[in-house]
Amino acid sequence: MKKHFALLTCLSLFVFGKMSAHDGSQLWLQGTAPTATSTLEIAKAELAQNWKGGEPEFGFAKIRKKDEPVGSFSIFIKAGKPTIFSATEIGMLYGAYHLIRLQQTGANVTDTAFVEKPSYDIRILNHWDNLNGTIERGYAGRSIFWRNSADQMRRNADGEVNEEDLLQPKDAPEIPSLDHLRDYARANASIGINAYVPDNVNASPKVLTTEYLLEVKKMADVVRPYGMKTYLAINFASPMVIGGLSTADPLNKDVQRWWTAKVKEIYKLIPDFGGFLVKANSEGQPGPNDFGRTHAEGANMLAKALKPFGGIVMWRAFVYSPSDPDRAKQAYLEFQPLDGQFLDNVIIQIKNGPIDFQPREAYSALFGAMPQTRQMAEWQITQEYLGHSNHIAYLAPMWTEFLQQIKDIAHCPINNATSPARALTAISAVSNIGNSPSWCGNVMAQSNWYAFGRLAWNDELTPCQIADEWARQTLFADCSDAAAAKALASVKSLMLRSREAIVDYMMPLGLHHQFAWGHHYGPEPYCDIPGARPDWMPSYYAKADREGLGFNRSSTGSNATGQYPADYARVLDDIDTCPYELLLWFHHVPWGKIIQHRYGDRVARESLWDALCHHYQHGLDEARAMQRDWEHCQGQIDADTFADIQRRLRIQTRDAQWWKDGCLLYFQTFSCLPFPDDVEPAVHDLDKLRAIKLGITNFECPSQELLDSVR
Amino acid sequence: MKKHFALLTCLSLFVFGKMSAHDGSQLWLQGTAPTATSTLEIAKAELAQNWKGGEPEFGFAKIRKKDEPVGSFSIFIKAGKPTIFSATEIGMLYGAYHLIRLQQTGANVTDTAFVEKPSYDIRILNHWDNLNGTIERGYAGRSIFWRNSADQMRRNADGEVNEEDLLQPKDAPEIPSLDHLRDYARANASIGINAYVPDNVNASPKVLTTEYLLEVKKMADVVRPYGMKTYLAINFASPMVIGGLSTADPLNKDVQRWWTAKVKEIYKLIPDFGGFLVKANSEGQPGPNDFGRTHAEGANMLAKALKPFGGIVMWRAFVYSPSDPDRAKQAYLEFQPLDGQFLDNVIIQIKNGPIDFQPREAYSALFGAMPQTRQMAEWQITQEYLGHSNHIAYLAPMWTEFLQQIKDIAHCPINNATSPARALTAISAVSNIGNSPSWCGNVMAQSNWYAFGRLAWNDELTPCQIADEWARQTLFADCSDAAAAKALASVKSLMLRSREAIVDYMMPLGLHHQFAWGHHYGPEPYCDIPGARPDWMPSYYAKADREGLGFNRSSTGSNATGQYPADYARVLDDIDTCPYELLLWFHHVPWGKIIQHRYGDRVARESLWDALCHHYQHGLDEARAMQRDWEHCQGQIDADTFADIQRRLRIQTRDAQWWKDGCLLYFQTFSCLPFPDDVEPAVHDLDKLRAIKLGITNFECPSQELLDSVR
Repeated sequence: MKKHFALLTCLSLFVFGKMSAHDGSQLWLQGTAPTATSTLEIAKAELAQNWKGGEPEFGFAKIRKKDEPVGSFSIFIKAGKPTIFSATEIGMLYGAYHLIRLQQTGANVTDTAFVEKPSYDIRILNHWDNLNGTIERGYAGRSIFWRNSADQMRRNADGEVNEEDLLQPKDAPEIPSLDHLRDYARANASIGINAYVPDNVNASPKVLTTEYLLEVKKMADVVRPYGMKTYLAINFASPMVIGGLSTADPLNKDVQRWWTAKVKEIYKLIPDFGGFLVKANSEGQPGPNDFGRTHAEGANMLAKALKPFGGIVMWRAFVYSPSDPDRAKQAYLEFQPLDGQFLDNVIIQIKNGPIDFQPREAYSALFGAMPQTRQMAEWQITQEYLGHSNHIAYLAPMWTEFLQQIKDIAHCPINNATSPARALTAISAVSNIGNSPSWCGNVMAQSNWYAFGRLAWNDELTPCQIADEWARQTLFADCSDAAAAKALASVKSLMLRSREAIVDYMMPLGLHHQFAWGHHYGPEPYCDIPGARPDWMPSYYAKADREGLGFNRSSTGSNATGQYPADYARVLDDIDTCPYELLLWFHHVPWGKIIQHRYGDRVARESLWDALCHHYQHGLDEARAMQRDWEHCQGQIDADTFADIQRRLRIQTRDAQWWKDGCLLYFQTFSCLPFPDDVEPAVHDLDKLRAIKLGITNFECPSQELLDSVR
Repeated sequence: MKKHFALLTCLSLFVFGKMSAHDGSQLWLQGTAPTATSTLEIAKAELAQNWKGGEPEFGFAKIRKKDEPVGSFSIFIKAGKPTIFSATEIGMLYGAYHLIRLQQTGANVTDTAFVEKPSYDIRILNHWDNLNGTIERGYAGRSIFWRNSADQMRRNADGEVNEEDLLQPKDAPEIPSLDHLRDYARANASIGINAYVPDNVNASPKVLTTEYLLEVKKMADVVRPYGMKTYLAINFASPMVIGGLSTADPLNKDVQRWWTAKVKEIYKLIPDFGGFLVKANSEGQPGPNDFGRTHAEGANMLAKALKPFGGIVMWRAFVYSPSDPDRAKQAYLEFQPLDGQFLDNVIIQIKNGPIDFQPREAYSALFGAMPQTRQMAEWQITQEYLGHSNHIAYLAPMWTEFLQQIKDIAHCPINNATSPARALTAISAVSNIGNSPSWCGNVMAQSNWYAFGRLAWNDELTPCQIADEWARQTLFADCSDAAAAKALASVKSLMLRSREAIVDYMMPLGLHHQFAWGHHYGPEPYCDIPGARPDWMPSYYAKADREGLGFNRSSTGSNATGQYPADYARVLDDIDTCPYELLLWFHHVPWGKIIQHRYGDRVARESLWDALCHHYQHGLDEARAMQRDWEHCQGQIDADTFADIQRRLRIQTRDAQWWKDGCLLYFQTFSCLPFPDDVEPAVHDLDKLRAIKLGITNFECPSQELLDSVR
């Protein structure tokens, strides 16, 4: 009895410390989403419920200045009384959210004045949501756009979902709660996101049927007052599948007519419809190449249909054939020669790196290489390659690293560019949102949705600034006392070290794609699927052999370095000047080659093998440091949130050990070298790690139970 | 193809380095066991096959000197030509093995002279082997004495062995290969062990049936030339079970007659039979208390029957009733008052500590407390509480620590004592031997068999000396080159740190018995079996509560400290002078109490909670250091042996993490304090650890697969 009593006392100490009650569903916001249909009314309602200073006023700046993007606003505060000026209602709403954010994050809101304008015109979330409710690479429950149809999916004897059920959505579309969609729109508006694509780029033709479009109209109507524009990902073969045509050839008149009519139908329902997102001739999706046409011919056909209504085409450059010797070069090889052929309402959507959302990639050489073509970046918020929702990974450092590179090296001007065609005027990211209570699978993952919005609005914000903003609003009711301030510092420490930790424990020094087959959770450098596409297997990327490690993309190899601007190409091409972070991306490096590199605070000159070992060890150490950072927050953070993240960080550290052991033991079979003495010996056996098969779909995060049972 | 070739090249480097070929079955010996039936002939044969110096001679020292124990010998070597003098043939055999050992370990064998005599007269291995071939707490296969009957054991639906099959051996006894027994006898002789008990102390009455005795005679005949004396563990109720009597009352004439006749029968078969080992009135075994008689009355009855033949009774003091408030006090309370009542051919066999072979215990207060009674120590070689055969634990440091204490504090004289009755003239240990290829479950575990023999022969040897001897003979063909010498140093480093590492990661600071229910593998401080004996549950020992941790055995508690000699009792009784290694053994210590303690090279003054955390962390760090030590031996040790121990060390490190997390997270529910910053946060969840049930018997070491599937 005594013991139970003691335990209760103890738990109550944990639970009732000073902290903000928070179940995760509130995100970084307070109050509820106003239901007004006028954007200005929403702005007023938000201030009424959340602004604690003098009564705010709004002023219309009647004429938009040249080069001033839609949504820009300025704020004047005098003696605590703010006025928000903008040429648009959405600018006023953004101003209102900005004001509230300043107050919540403890900024000076008494006397100040400033102007805010977005870095990119289109700030868009791509949802890889299937019409049956599953989300490809989603680890936060099921779709908030398409009704959960889990009960209708069949599983085979192994528990795998029947593929057909994924591809064949139910005939009758169902969409979930409009209140939920309003909360979604409000959250986006609060950080400046102004567009979304609710369906997967592996698109079902059915989304263009009238019955689905009627549902999309309902969504569009709900989110419109929050400044959110609706786009659709479309299947290029739609005219055949749902239009009854015998071809989808973009030069075929019937096909063109079909699209023109379909676009008209859409705009009748959704007058501010944004346009189409297209994945064509990529990973089995249909596209113009199937009919002997180019990407440009395909994209332009759609762009023509959309042009009269102001719509655009976002055409993805994520293409790679099964046979090419270097997958990293292919998007460039296919698209760069098409520069100048795309209509001006086509934007080429390019993933940040040339492979596929790896923990660290070189930037895609396509950026800046098509001066006559509009381009946009595609980031991935959902952690397909970053431990799904089990791992805590704050991605702002990855994205600012990319932005810096494309501005400095690829010379991509942003928005107010002298040559508008060359400017990046749009930015997209693959969402991590689902119907889980915390929206993103866990509370910390919300920081990446937040960071994407904030960076899309202002790409000069630093990861530290954004982490500070987000954590103050999301985790801490009040950071004025010392204990909360200390916890805030710990959370930021955790966030800011997380991405490099993941690079280090997963694939440091430019290694990439050492992931498990299919679901991409956990290491599988040893993956060997007989008959599989070579470029879907890790060995294709690591190229480990007795001599060394890494993919020779230098001029003595695939010459991918040659796709970059000449100055940068020279730096990359020389094994002795190539940045160590990208060394194995561009070079096949002998195990004994002495390299200079950095891990944590240490600069070292040592062999590739020792460097590799030190990075993996450092990654594991950093995972532990992240745990420690989080432990410092106990009592300052809602107890359920604390426990949930604590549990995930434990999984993450165990996974880091799995990564370190799996990769190092496997590469050791080639290097035949021992670990340096300050690297912990493996605790796993390679043979056992080789045998691990999680058997999950590509829309599942493995449970702790599953992981514990295999590793 | 190229990759496979590279891999083969690499593996071959591992396999064909400089090392001794060794499959583990050879133990620390070379050559084969001579089959001669004369001890002197065996000595000659051993030298002939293994001695590489001048031709050895033997000299009979006709009369044994006073106080010179049987088996003593002296060796003179002149110009590489040795002469072994002894009063007995077994002394000559020991001398021969000693000579070979000197040569194998690189000692000077050219010109030297010395005398060797054993510290203890009886140096005996207790085998807890059941007649059906299973071995209680054995993790190295099945019995080498009793035929493997695994195929006849039934398992229930859960895979558990039917208890009846364990208790009911087959009617027809079978014993295994006599060659194997000869190898066993030779190994023992080579390190001075001169006695064994082939059957479990939880004894089957059947071992005393004529058909089993005939088999025991065969064993005795095989091992006799190697100086090995045979003893039997007997069931006190044998006269009832196999004798058809209605009682086993030691004062009953029929019972006495039955034992007298049985002893006669045994000596007729085995003229040098050693005597009986008895576990009575302990953990459900029958004994004199069942008939209202004392342990002394029971032991003396057997001693009288054995006396005419020179036989002895080893009567175990391992008793504890289910109800007493402090189990640690009970052996003393039951036995100490009987001092003076035991016949002189009774030896009380006392476990080193008052509980049960924990990683660290205070010594049993019975030692030195019965001046009129012969006593012997019982150690445990098999790693019941030390990670079974999965963990590498070199136990010489534990045993020398004990020997030092009973000599210094309990004033137990050894052999050449002024009062022979008080002298420890015998020493026993529970064997770790089974029919696994390496005898002991793994090669490193052989070091404990070796160390027991060597310490029983010469209890002034240091753990380091013994480790050096053992490793040179067992693992390295030749330590003359630098690489092998370095590997030898690493192996010794591993061995010498292993026991304290285990104390630290399992139960530091005097904690004890936090083991999983039944099989004792892994942590279970949270164990809670409704209705179970309290003293079979960890909470009984840890006494964790909101205030602190530890069992108050001071004068304000159970006063177990009062059982020790007054000077030492005073030291133990004061929380501020009690050695930190035994602090929680004797005191309930507040979480915040500042203690001075040492872990690794660090001396710290800090709170109990911080100290506890640091010890667990240090244990985990040491497990990693042991892995590292072993990695340094790669290429210098037989590849299979290297891989096997490497695999076990990986399990050990993962188990160390399990122990650290399980214990600290559980105790944290009471302390409500955070880990210090230099302690790694947990990677396991307490709730998940609580749910772990290995479901193994008490003669199984859990497989890696089983462990991986649960933790």
